[in-house]
Amino acid sequence: MKTIQRVAFVGVGAVGLLYASRLARAGVETHLLFRSDFDVAQADGIRVKSCDGDFTLPSGAFHAHKDASTVPAVDLVVVTAKTTANEALPGLLKLLIQPGTRLLTLQNGLGNEEFLADLFPRSPIFGGTAFVCVHRTAPAAINHQHGGRLHIGRHGASEVDADTRLIWSLLARSGLEVKVFDVLARARWEKQLWNVPFNGLGAALLADTSILLATKDGELLVRALMDEVMRVANADGHPLPSDLPQKLIESTRKMGAYRSSMQLDREAGRPLEIDAIVSSVRKRAHLHGLTTPLLPILELQLRSIDKTTKAPR
Amino acid sequence: MKTIQRVAFVGVGAVGLLYASRLARAGVETHLLFRSDFDVAQADGIRVKSCDGDFTLPSGAFHAHKDASTVPAVDLVVVTAKTTANEALPGLLKLLIQPGTRLLTLQNGLGNEEFLADLFPRSPIFGGTAFVCVHRTAPAAINHQHGGRLHIGRHGASEVDADTRLIWSLLARSGLEVKVFDVLARARWEKQLWNVPFNGLGAALLADTSILLATKDGELLVRALMDEVMRVANADGHPLPSDLPQKLIESTRKMGAYRSSMQLDREAGRPLEIDAIVSSVRKRAHLHGLTTPLLPILELQLRSIDKTTKAPR
Repeated sequence: MKTIQRVAFVGVGAVGLLYASRLARAGVETHLLFRSDFDVAQADGIRVKSCDGDFTLPSGAFHAHKDASTVPAVDLVVVTAKTTANEALPGLLKLLIQPGTRLLTLQNGLGNEEFLADLFPRSPIFGGTAFVCVHRTAPAAINHQHGGRLHIGRHGASEVDADTRLIWSLLARSGLEVKVFDVLARARWEKQLWNVPFNGLGAALLADTSILLATKDGELLVRALMDEVMRVANADGHPLPSDLPQKLIESTRKMGAYRSSMQLDREAGRPLEIDAIVSSVRKRAHLHGLTTPLLPILELQLRSIDKTTKAPR
Repeated sequence: MKTIQRVAFVGVGAVGLLYASRLARAGVETHLLFRSDFDVAQADGIRVKSCDGDFTLPSGAFHAHKDASTVPAVDLVVVTAKTTANEALPGLLKLLIQPGTRLLTLQNGLGNEEFLADLFPRSPIFGGTAFVCVHRTAPAAINHQHGGRLHIGRHGASEVDADTRLIWSLLARSGLEVKVFDVLARARWEKQLWNVPFNGLGAALLADTSILLATKDGELLVRALMDEVMRVANADGHPLPSDLPQKLIESTRKMGAYRSSMQLDREAGRPLEIDAIVSSVRKRAHLHGLTTPLLPILELQLRSIDKTTKAPR
């Protein structure tokens, strides 16, 4: 089977810059479709400060684009855009997707593969969750503090197929850990177990992971939200291991004072990924007739803040 | 009946500075027991920036104290300390309270009169709620933006007595509106209807009144919290008018972007008045067997933030 030769990244934020720069450094032909960072990336390359070793990827080592029409035919399109920018995706992706082009979304939350599958029903759709502490510090510059594990799988599949292995072997060239899941939805739900409390409460209360876990009251809230997510995942047919909340809390403690992406988004006045991260779970709870009191409250809190930061005063 | 000649203020924050300075300006012998502001107040007086006209009260026009033992016998002690500093009150007050000395607490929340009545069971205890936008801008300096109405009443009484009228006539010399309630608890509950959503959510979400009321979602949260407070007040024997939430929301809209005292406390890293403002209501709900889902969540959120700001990292 042929390998994946060319890859394009769409929506190049912190996560996109991290994986794209490491793949390009490993010799993969990598195309990045930028918006605001194009000029800096084109001129100075990509600067990566990393727990795994700092490096700068020179601009000659990757292909920077500011327009989807200049991107050549690729074997794989990786979507790393914020879900809050999803309305811009159809227009961009239709220029990149040809018969057989694989689509991998590393976006946060639930519903991302479904969104792409609706747009491109004949394309092979893959998804992944990233367990990584990385944030953008300047145009085309990131700080990778911790982790980098990817959990990937094929949308709608129940076992690992050859195409998924092909994507695995590509992503593994990043040098970061990649795990393949036979059922992608389970990987999504595992990530949601972290996302809902730490992104949700982090943004609502402007409290980093160490603040949320510093007190019994904070840990109680985190656990109560995790419990609601566990129940919804279970009703959705993807029961999670009962010791997963404890494991996630312990590993999160080791991350120290980590500000989640949604907290950073709020602090920067950017739209919050409420739909993908919180509402998606609340809606499934409703679908299954489950009572989850915390999810709708958290959603209302986030919406009351989110809309206002964008509203004119 | 003799009038009130001498008054002492204990715990002189923004509210205390406002009423004390206006009473002193009106010729009332006013003693202020300062902590950190003593030196500035003694040297430069009290600076009041006010929607009602700016003025500086010269230091000769009032009596500044830094020790309760220098305060002479007074007819009325007004407590304006934060409830989070209540543990310091017994020691201070026992130096000021003599047989017949009246005690008036203008502190926020529920349980303040009960706290004083437990300490001084033979003293006449009064309480009041302040509807005023005022904050301390520097030592012995305040900015009074809006309002100033006081609702006062006698603890445990069911009708207005002569002593309450005496206190009314004193406070009215401030030139600010003072209303007497036959049942003080009702005034307390009316204030709680504002306090719980706007102080509570304001501090938890770091969102001022205009942010909370700018969206349907924010207003929904505010109304849902008010609904819980209404039900607890009702169960407590103090039903509030059904149109009061709407009236409060309308009057709060007119205040513009007002940051509640609890939000300011959080921003300044000070302890939050969670016990008096939120826990007091949640506990009464529990006592009456009421289900109020939002109150305990808000309390947990506030506690997770509050303790951490004080905890060493």
